[in-house]
Amino acid sequence: MSFRRVMIMCRWLAYSGSPVNLEDLLFRPVRSLVMQSKHSRLGAEEMNGDGFGVGWYSRGPRPGLFHSTHPAWNDRNLRELSALAWSERVFAHIRASTGSAVQETNCHPFRHERWLWMHNGMISDFPRVKRDLAVAVAPEFFPLIEGSTDSELFFYLALTFGLEDDPAPAVATAVGFIEETGRRHGIEHPVQMTVATTDGDTTWAFRYSTEGRSRSLFYSRDVSALRALHPENPQLQRLSPDARLVVSEPLGDLEGAWQEVPESTFLAVRGGGIELAPFTPVAA
Amino acid sequence: MSFRRVMIMCRWLAYSGSPVNLEDLLFRPVRSLVMQSKHSRLGAEEMNGDGFGVGWYSRGPRPGLFHSTHPAWNDRNLRELSALAWSERVFAHIRASTGSAVQETNCHPFRHERWLWMHNGMISDFPRVKRDLAVAVAPEFFPLIEGSTDSELFFYLALTFGLEDDPAPAVATAVGFIEETGRRHGIEHPVQMTVATTDGDTTWAFRYSTEGRSRSLFYSRDVSALRALHPENPQLQRLSPDARLVVSEPLGDLEGAWQEVPESTFLAVRGGGIELAPFTPVAA
Amino acid sequence: MSFRRVMIMCRWLAYSGSPVNLEDLLFRPVRSLVMQSKHSRLGAEEMNGDGFGVGWYSRGPRPGLFHSTHPAWNDRNLRELSALAWSERVFAHIRASTGSAVQETNCHPFRHERWLWMHNGMISDFPRVKRDLAVAVAPEFFPLIEGSTDSELFFYLALTFGLEDDPAPAVATAVGFIEETGRRHGIEHPVQMTVATTDGDTTWAFRYSTEGRSRSLFYSRDVSALRALHPENPQLQRLSPDARLVVSEPLGDLEGAWQEVPESTFLAVRGGGIELAPFTPVAA
Amino acid sequence: MSFRRVMIMCRWLAYSGSPVNLEDLLFRPVRSLVMQSKHSRLGAEEMNGDGFGVGWYSRGPRPGLFHSTHPAWNDRNLRELSALAWSERVFAHIRASTGSAVQETNCHPFRHERWLWMHNGMISDFPRVKRDLAVAVAPEFFPLIEGSTDSELFFYLALTFGLEDDPAPAVATAVGFIEETGRRHGIEHPVQMTVATTDGDTTWAFRYSTEGRSRSLFYSRDVSALRALHPENPQLQRLSPDARLVVSEPLGDLEGAWQEVPESTFLAVRGGGIELAPFTPVAA
Repeated sequence: MSFRRVMIMCRWLAYSGSPVNLEDLLFRPVRSLVMQSKHSRLGAEEMNGDGFGVGWYSRGPRPGLFHSTHPAWNDRNLRELSALAWSERVFAHIRASTGSAVQETNCHPFRHERWLWMHNGMISDFPRVKRDLAVAVAPEFFPLIEGSTDSELFFYLALTFGLEDDPAPAVATAVGFIEETGRRHGIEHPVQMTVATTDGDTTWAFRYSTEGRSRSLFYSRDVSALRALHPENPQLQRLSPDARLVVSEPLGDLEGAWQEVPESTFLAVRGGGIELAPFTPVAA
Repeated sequence: MSFRRVMIMCRWLAYSGSPVNLEDLLFRPVRSLVMQSKHSRLGAEEMNGDGFGVGWYSRGPRPGLFHSTHPAWNDRNLRELSALAWSERVFAHIRASTGSAVQETNCHPFRHERWLWMHNGMISDFPRVKRDLAVAVAPEFFPLIEGSTDSELFFYLALTFGLEDDPAPAVATAVGFIEETGRRHGIEHPVQMTVATTDGDTTWAFRYSTEGRSRSLFYSRDVSALRALHPENPQLQRLSPDARLVVSEPLGDLEGAWQEVPESTFLAVRGGGIELAPFTPVAA
Repeated sequence: MSFRRVMIMCRWLAYSGSPVNLEDLLFRPVRSLVMQSKHSRLGAEEMNGDGFGVGWYSRGPRPGLFHSTHPAWNDRNLRELSALAWSERVFAHIRASTGSAVQETNCHPFRHERWLWMHNGMISDFPRVKRDLAVAVAPEFFPLIEGSTDSELFFYLALTFGLEDDPAPAVATAVGFIEETGRRHGIEHPVQMTVATTDGDTTWAFRYSTEGRSRSLFYSRDVSALRALHPENPQLQRLSPDARLVVSEPLGDLEGAWQEVPESTFLAVRGGGIELAPFTPVAA
Repeated sequence: MSFRRVMIMCRWLAYSGSPVNLEDLLFRPVRSLVMQSKHSRLGAEEMNGDGFGVGWYSRGPRPGLFHSTHPAWNDRNLRELSALAWSERVFAHIRASTGSAVQETNCHPFRHERWLWMHNGMISDFPRVKRDLAVAVAPEFFPLIEGSTDSELFFYLALTFGLEDDPAPAVATAVGFIEETGRRHGIEHPVQMTVATTDGDTTWAFRYSTEGRSRSLFYSRDVSALRALHPENPQLQRLSPDARLVVSEPLGDLEGAWQEVPESTFLAVRGGGIELAPFTPVAA
């Protein structure tokens, strides 16, 4: 129980594949992400009612964002938007805050040009390290910071360390820098994370924590897993063979549909292919 | 589980006594109302995140209202307001909607001049009976209806049947009328309710359901129960002997502090005195 | 000045034609609707900051809705949504309230199945006639009323009088009924309106007031008027010849692009064709 | 017109004196602050609809805050809160943003312990200097920054330079530092401001701009000016002789009630006394 009190917990989902309707993706599955906003099984918090966000690609390279400070389960605009929007690549995130303000600029996913970023976990003792981390953000990115979360600052550190050129090393360097900074401030386990990021073509996802007890992360084995989420839904039945989901918590109830990502691992989803590799922080 | 899906569930609290700070009342107790918005023990829904409201009396006969569509647990304005406000009579309500819009005009308590009203429960199959109930509202009250809930319409029916003159018979007549209307539409159990209402001097609370399985309702035995909610809080220790709480779910963990109100009962709190009497619907 | 105080004033726009990007339509023109939310030239109120709404058709017959209680000019979600959404038929409305609550259920356009409805103007002395009007709404529509505005009730009266079968007579009968009801209550000029409604195929627009001094209403002469709104915008240049706008206030600064609709007139836009006819209320 | 486009414009009011009801103060005067949110006479923007805030002192040294992202003129909670709240010291602010997010953490007044701060004006080209200014904020204050405005950062710079010990020199040093930083980035006129700050006992207000064309600032000559704002209001008639208002724009229509503060001046209000002194930025 005391464990629960110190954690910042969220839930997220990253889809890629043939165009999917957002309502089919976010609302219809058993244990859908929107339903997880009320009752999460695996989350540290049972509930994720402190705002949410959706990022989706349509025409053009820059994704759209919908951020709301209301719980996902009662936001009518989310439902309306989802009913009419289709996309080949969708990021969605529901938030549980333990203190930082509930405001749209603190909602994930965060965006920089064609990139999206979302995070479940935390930078431990964030107020103690926030200034040192902020100062390390490159001057061209600094004025773009709009909110007050650790997750957004983490994103801008990854951008500073080259996310747009080579995501995995950039994230590894950002994590290394956060750990180094945290330890300098006497923090034992500075990083707890699953992260997803995309440039609109490839999705990268990371599971890592300094402590080695990371938040859960799963990906769908293949499209049959997605089709089985809602057997009577013709849209899901028509998903292309390369459709993939990466999620913080499995949707649906199908045994065997989901593969857990091991500790200290990152994965890259390109088309229907998934590559996994070990993830190790790198000194900045 | 199917039981849970058809219920509209809320939590509420009615305080009267010497002036109390709203933060002491709403946030500080173990299992406080605000904490119940995240994790209710006795509620049909585990969570009440679809808005909330507070009504409180200060100078003058007309109470103030604060209504918000955000969850109580993350609303900073509620915390700020509570920190500075003191009142001898406070109504507070957290809402769980199963469909009607999350908007301030659907938040309890509702107000008419010096009166407040809040409700936990539902009028069953409300869409089927809504028109017949609305038509029965007196013409002078009809244009004052601002929201779309069963609870607000129930309030205006009670006003139509004389709430301001004699609350208990007025509520009994309103309930009788709702049951009669419901049955005419083939509804088996038209009413499920705990209700609290006040004119600023007396608080009346009702526990009733057509089915005879009503929502829970409790009152504090005496001021020592309130003092025990937060032993180190000097304000609570200074509460007057006549301070009383009526609640849908006990606060705090003290055995013996709370007395459950029996089925089909209403109570009137005047000063520190509590009178209980049987509650029976009356044909309109 | 006193004239200004009694008016409820809004602004709206109805587009039909080849698919248009909502950002091009709502934000980019000189004197765009979103800019009118800050500074209207022809409105009774200079500002329309009490919420807004957009309805647009995409796949399927049921339009999407986006309603917000924030001013259109500072709502980021509107901007995001507009950037990615394309539609052949768009209704957009910015609201200025003089008393009824600022809540999403009071934002236009209102929707019933495939139909949209929006209104600029008012039913005079609405609180005095509200009950009589509400009682006249057909029982199957009554429980669908979610907000508290005259405009939504007007919509459900029009539906009651057959909007889905034959819009112009249904609106004429609704107006006749409102006028008759108002006069029975001693109201001199019960109706002030421009209204737009659509089933997704045809748009009907009405300009009428009991007093004969109706809110302004314009339509675009032809597609060249639309193209001229933003000459450097390639999307607008590619609009089909049948593209049409009906607006409460002209967009852009082009002389001759807009044709005013006369008093007591309705128009029907089917494809690029516009038919005008006299509008006369009919006794219910 | 182009002048208008580059300005960030707000309106504010600072009251001190015998306890005043917030509704009397904020809503009732002719040209009240809330009415200025719709129609400002002297503002660079005609409208200030991008959120507002109120800070007021009650029991205890720490003021309460109410921040909202809605326009002040349509926020019912502001009206409710104001009706019941009384205070000897009130800060109120209505905001017009030209880009930074409309969120509660960007609403003035800002608070640090017993201090309040509000600002009308801007730090020119803020994105270009934001990082250099942020880095200068003392490490103990840095993690307290919650929003993204120039005004909040200005507050934390003033705190860094000793606001709590000696406000006037601290503000002078902060302004000097901002000017020096701006000029290093090639910005001609880095600072445009009226600022009010208080510790709960004294109010300090500053009028200054690098360009020498500062936003307007006025103070009430004496309590008779306040009483004349609303002659029939008994509360205002009972104000103590030491009651004072400092405002960005005069309330009411009384000739001679208001004294304009000269350029490059600061004033201190202690009890009913007002001291004016020249304000000159100081090199950091």
